[in-house]
Amino acid sequence: MKLSERAINIQASPIRKLMPYANNAKKRGIKIYHLNIGQPDIETPKEMLDVYASYHDKVLAYGPSQGLDIYRENLVNYYQKHNITIDVDDIIVTTAGSEAIIFAMLATCNQGDEIIIPEPFYTNYNGFATMTGVKIIPLTTQVENGFCLPSDNEIRALISAKTKAIMLCNPGNPTGTVYPKKDIERAAKIAKENNLFVISDEVYREFVYDGLTHTSILDISGMEELAIMVDSISKRYSACGARIGCLISRNKQLIASVLKFAQARLCPPTIDQLAANACIDIEAQYFVEILREYDIRRNIVFDELQKIDGIVCIKPEGAFYIIAKLPIDDAEDFARWLLEDFSVNNETVMFAPAQGFYATPGIGKNEIRIAYVLNENDLKTAMDILRQGLEEYKKRN
Amino acid sequence: MKLSERAINIQASPIRKLMPYANNAKKRGIKIYHLNIGQPDIETPKEMLDVYASYHDKVLAYGPSQGLDIYRENLVNYYQKHNITIDVDDIIVTTAGSEAIIFAMLATCNQGDEIIIPEPFYTNYNGFATMTGVKIIPLTTQVENGFCLPSDNEIRALISAKTKAIMLCNPGNPTGTVYPKKDIERAAKIAKENNLFVISDEVYREFVYDGLTHTSILDISGMEELAIMVDSISKRYSACGARIGCLISRNKQLIASVLKFAQARLCPPTIDQLAANACIDIEAQYFVEILREYDIRRNIVFDELQKIDGIVCIKPEGAFYIIAKLPIDDAEDFARWLLEDFSVNNETVMFAPAQGFYATPGIGKNEIRIAYVLNENDLKTAMDILRQGLEEYKKRN
Repeated sequence: MKLSERAINIQASPIRKLMPYANNAKKRGIKIYHLNIGQPDIETPKEMLDVYASYHDKVLAYGPSQGLDIYRENLVNYYQKHNITIDVDDIIVTTAGSEAIIFAMLATCNQGDEIIIPEPFYTNYNGFATMTGVKIIPLTTQVENGFCLPSDNEIRALISAKTKAIMLCNPGNPTGTVYPKKDIERAAKIAKENNLFVISDEVYREFVYDGLTHTSILDISGMEELAIMVDSISKRYSACGARIGCLISRNKQLIASVLKFAQARLCPPTIDQLAANACIDIEAQYFVEILREYDIRRNIVFDELQKIDGIVCIKPEGAFYIIAKLPIDDAEDFARWLLEDFSVNNETVMFAPAQGFYATPGIGKNEIRIAYVLNENDLKTAMDILRQGLEEYKKRN
Repeated sequence: MKLSERAINIQASPIRKLMPYANNAKKRGIKIYHLNIGQPDIETPKEMLDVYASYHDKVLAYGPSQGLDIYRENLVNYYQKHNITIDVDDIIVTTAGSEAIIFAMLATCNQGDEIIIPEPFYTNYNGFATMTGVKIIPLTTQVENGFCLPSDNEIRALISAKTKAIMLCNPGNPTGTVYPKKDIERAAKIAKENNLFVISDEVYREFVYDGLTHTSILDISGMEELAIMVDSISKRYSACGARIGCLISRNKQLIASVLKFAQARLCPPTIDQLAANACIDIEAQYFVEILREYDIRRNIVFDELQKIDGIVCIKPEGAFYIIAKLPIDDAEDFARWLLEDFSVNNETVMFAPAQGFYATPGIGKNEIRIAYVLNENDLKTAMDILRQGLEEYKKRN
């Protein structure tokens, strides 16, 4: 029996598909610096881990489909700290940001409907689009101008009768771009004019450098019926393994429908929600320190990249990724070669080839995404291995 | 902006949609016996809860998309105890059984493809089918003959060019039916003849009474390429809030595709997997005692139902549900009335109206699903409230 077309066509994750090569390298005794995946090395807050340790219910029961009341009520406080005023009933807690995006796609689009997304975008949007039958219409942005949002006319040119939403990731994964408020307003204006939803992925809200300000789609007036925000605690609290996210909208009908999707899968993990709940009261100082650390890392990666001949990249303004255009033809071949055939003192480095972060065929083939999620020393070593590897690879090809 | 058709059309969960009425009743001081949802009152094994208490990693990190190696390796041992021999690479750990079913539907069906499912079936299959664009073709079974699998000809009559799979739930939720091996073999034979997958939901494997034997689809020879088993720890270890399940198949191509779906959403919850892992070594005596308890409950519910005039039901052979046909027209109206307008000593009872467990319009309207997940005394009280409520409701209507 043949598998479905979506099963055959779904993209292998560029973040994870080289893992077999990495595992083989590890078996050969090679240490790998993982800059391929946004798995921070930052410690998960003790307040959160303490919840697991102190769980004392006798029955690990289902929670409500919309999420635990105590957590949703506390999330209202979290968003209020960011000047986002929402009601507890605007929130559906999800199994990580992934499920929130899937729900947003399901709720806004029928099979074959279209969502306009600036590319490069978080690669797994491709997988979610395949799963939900959504067609991603890429709005191409360039490393040379900091992946800024293209002009209104360029956006409008992509709108068709099948367009249901514009999706933004802000701060951007993999671009590191933080959209200024005027760009969010531009996207919102175009959405309103064309009666489109705006799905805003804001999981990196806190990761904004250089004193820039993050603008939430929920901040934009007149967007009450059209704004859908997706969020996750994975990066915020270095808690990727907890799988807790949420979807927020002031559109009551949309939330009622998303609740029905949520009811079908019953509930998000119970203890993990309680653990996430404990993070809400963490003091602002926590993020100040983390941001200081990421800022140092950002500078190291950017400065080291600047030293390499022929690399094109801009200094990211947010999140913890950077896209670098390499002076080679095929970044995936290079990334695999680093794992299979190259090492410095028995160490090598792993990146995500960036092509899978684009929907336009052929674009991004010579780009990589670097996640600067390691400590300063490891980052310096990793960037040095990249530099040496690139020299050696260029000689051989 | 209009929501998508799937967002508008998705069924509200009959298990959960009456919850607002239940919450209102609670606010009025009414105690509710929840027989609407398969949330067991059985204590979660201490071995499992201890894992949460003893988690000591500093970073709550992503796990592998296919699940933690230690857990998958141990699952091989679990299935071996049930005489099911599988390889670790046949397993994808999922976020509960729900995600396993969604993955199975996505991997086997394109939008508009069909899966034949005996009805009444686990109602959330409807939601998953809406989410994945699958059309459920119901194979109607009857309470009067114990919801047994219909004849080969009746099954064959439903197969079309769009049929991609037959889906079975064994032991059955909501029917309590345990298919004899010959019926699983019949379904497998028809699947092989027509090159269809068989998706087998076996989450109630251990809940089999009267010395009957459970037959897994993975036990049937010649089905290596066509058998997909979905499983969950939720009921087995009374751990519904952990959200850990799995999908198992010996079809390598299918597993490779499901892994790509799994990679898009990154991973199932990490600590919950470790907790699930601790359950595998629980001694067989654990299930002997639980089964003895559920057997007592089964007898109470069945005996009490027999005392009520005009009720049709059969004694379930497995799982912990019973479908009862009531001598009224509209079981949903009755279930709502029990929550809104009826109580005995400030207590009432909540059931799931069974209509949502059918795909054929109009069938099951006078049936309810009872989950016998409470202790003996509570069950007796709940059944007594049902009996009194039914008398009163009949008088009024």
